[in-house]
Amino acid sequence: MTDHRLRVLKGHGTENDFLVLPDLDAVVSLSPSLVRALCDRHTGIGADGVLRVVRTKLATEPDVRAQAAEAEYFMDYHNADGSIAEMCGNGVRVFARYLEQAGLIAGPTAIGTRGGVKQVSFSADEISVDMGASRLRLERPVVAATGLLGEYQAIAIDMPNPHVVIELDDDAALAALDLATAPLVTPALPEGQNVEFIVRTGPSRLRMRVHERGVGETRSCGTGICAAVVVAAGENAGHGEWLVDIPGGQCRVSWTTSGSVVLTGPAVLIAEVELAEDWTAAHR
Amino acid sequence: MTDHRLRVLKGHGTENDFLVLPDLDAVVSLSPSLVRALCDRHTGIGADGVLRVVRTKLATEPDVRAQAAEAEYFMDYHNADGSIAEMCGNGVRVFARYLEQAGLIAGPTAIGTRGGVKQVSFSADEISVDMGASRLRLERPVVAATGLLGEYQAIAIDMPNPHVVIELDDDAALAALDLATAPLVTPALPEGQNVEFIVRTGPSRLRMRVHERGVGETRSCGTGICAAVVVAAGENAGHGEWLVDIPGGQCRVSWTTSGSVVLTGPAVLIAEVELAEDWTAAHR
Repeated sequence: MTDHRLRVLKGHGTENDFLVLPDLDAVVSLSPSLVRALCDRHTGIGADGVLRVVRTKLATEPDVRAQAAEAEYFMDYHNADGSIAEMCGNGVRVFARYLEQAGLIAGPTAIGTRGGVKQVSFSADEISVDMGASRLRLERPVVAATGLLGEYQAIAIDMPNPHVVIELDDDAALAALDLATAPLVTPALPEGQNVEFIVRTGPSRLRMRVHERGVGETRSCGTGICAAVVVAAGENAGHGEWLVDIPGGQCRVSWTTSGSVVLTGPAVLIAEVELAEDWTAAHR
Repeated sequence: MTDHRLRVLKGHGTENDFLVLPDLDAVVSLSPSLVRALCDRHTGIGADGVLRVVRTKLATEPDVRAQAAEAEYFMDYHNADGSIAEMCGNGVRVFARYLEQAGLIAGPTAIGTRGGVKQVSFSADEISVDMGASRLRLERPVVAATGLLGEYQAIAIDMPNPHVVIELDDDAALAALDLATAPLVTPALPEGQNVEFIVRTGPSRLRMRVHERGVGETRSCGTGICAAVVVAAGENAGHGEWLVDIPGGQCRVSWTTSGSVVLTGPAVLIAEVELAEDWTAAHR
């Protein structure tokens, strides 16, 4: 007899929240409509996305299955709107926290993602993820936004998703921003962009707000934090450690000796959730 | 040995969502900070409020304990902001659904609330609640709102919380409303007000949008639905049945022979949730 009740865990990394769906043997049919239903904050549980935990060798995509020798578990990441995404800097920490608490790993590990294998390590209450290399772009768009006085010069950077970073003068300018509507980027990057507004609050410290492509203002954005630090560090990128304060908390950014950007931050699992059978049946 | 893990159920009535906390023997200390933490949609589970289920005879308030002879269970209702509320038309259906599914009642019942004992009955997938008498008020404020052309005459009514109801000409006018900011009511009721905008879509049918006092636009408001129907029915109030379409679904309104307003609508429990011990400990 199989118990058909769907079980997930809810967790978050700097207030970017996820439902972790343990499905090691790849038996759960996670349709876009079920993802949307689970992530609906009033009629479902509510989250920014679903992280399905699957053995990498059982992934449907050949590119992912090819990671099986390096990474035992695959983060099958679904956005709240039902679409599939490659990677998520906050999500991968929550995913790693699940692997650790479930006893599936002990110590540093590699996690399979659609964006390649990610190296993860644990330290006290935090988790570090190797986010890969950044690439500065040639574009230098100007940015206007509600609450922003005049236009600001921006720097474009891939992490590897596209970002545009704008440095403001002080906290007051950052607080005055209204990101309910998307900032106007001229010219916009061809793929669209996440827009990070930063203020220097110390020698290696930033405060940041972010408008995510297709989402709106969010409490945190893992790749955005990395992009902002690379831009702020300028010629010093690759050395030392930076602290970034975002509305959802605090993360740290450093580099590996080979120049990969490492994002470190908290990740917690707060609850186990068991969906009612009739609810799940109605949304499959 | 006691298991200290906090368990709640998540449910909703026309997308007004709640966490039901079974605590028949009144042993859970539900502080305002724990309520806020549970209702936080990113760092908690997320809901519009918490409905604690307690034996009425164990309630702390003498006024509620006095209901014990009539109602075995008390709906100890807490808003998401941690404040205490008297009653909630959608919440009491979700509360009743819990009593039914937990096997605590079989058939029609009476539920204790800070707003008095409420009679509840079940029919197919819906639950009916006797919401008490409405009282038309003498005030006739005018209302302006973003997206609304000109000012509209409103009717004020207590259900028993204060409402202001405005009838618009057609669906287009209703759809054009922007309720992100509160409508301007002149003069405002001394206690503030919920504001309902309605359009007649049939002989005994309304479409409605609502701005709730201190909350903003919501997907549904039980007392608002009742207030809107009483105003729309005018001299025919007390007879027949009305259908009200709201963003979160559909409810029906009728009257008892003694003139009480009866609200009927769906209520579902979608999941059982078990909070992590360290999370609960951090928010007590």
